[in-house]
Amino acid sequence: MVKFEQAGLDASFAALSDATRRGVLEQLGRSDASITDLAEKFQMTLAGMMKHVGVLEQAGLVTTEKVGRVRNCKLGARTLEEEAAWLDRHRQLWASRFDALDEVVEQLKRKEKNNGRKK
Amino acid sequence: MVKFEQAGLDASFAALSDATRRGVLEQLGRSDASITDLAEKFQMTLAGMMKHVGVLEQAGLVTTEKVGRVRNCKLGARTLEEEAAWLDRHRQLWASRFDALDEVVEQLKRKEKNNGRKK
Repeated sequence: MVKFEQAGLDASFAALSDATRRGVLEQLGRSDASITDLAEKFQMTLAGMMKHVGVLEQAGLVTTEKVGRVRNCKLGARTLEEEAAWLDRHRQLWASRFDALDEVVEQLKRKEKNNGRKK
Repeated sequence: MVKFEQAGLDASFAALSDATRRGVLEQLGRSDASITDLAEKFQMTLAGMMKHVGVLEQAGLVTTEKVGRVRNCKLGARTLEEEAAWLDRHRQLWASRFDALDEVVEQLKRKEKNNGRKK
């Protein structure tokens, strides 16, 4: 059984729970960008964007580096592999639960059919 | 390009950002349970567990049904397929960014080696 590091999952799922922050990750997936670039692109104040980038940085999804007056952002070391594994496992459990439910429904149908014949 | 439904992703990633809520989903993946069962299992007050289940229900990850005095919980219709697709796409972007970086490093190494030979 996979052992998940819960605090890391808490932080990364929370970081992903905002459309702007997901957009920033998509943007940084295409090319690095400064906080100023990102604020412009997402039509947001510098302070607002710094807050979002801070959340992503805390979760390890982004790293930033100050060069002169500019803070450059790029994708961090966290690859979301654990998060993807968690989702996959959940989806497998989900599917097996609903397969089991299907089986019960099929059994009930067969029973009904047999009862019908006996009448 | 996949078009994601942002509000749905916001809600489900937020729901997943808590270890207890992820634990509840894992539990319901094994078998349905009442709020009381879940509160006991996670050593939490009924009110606390109801709040967590409420967040999961809002995100479509859990459905509940009141039977007499008992509120039964089971997995909801949301399969986390979109969430998994988002993560996969991000991981692909991530990998391609780092492959590109590797290529730059390789080029620099080759250049250095050639310069070394010229000396």
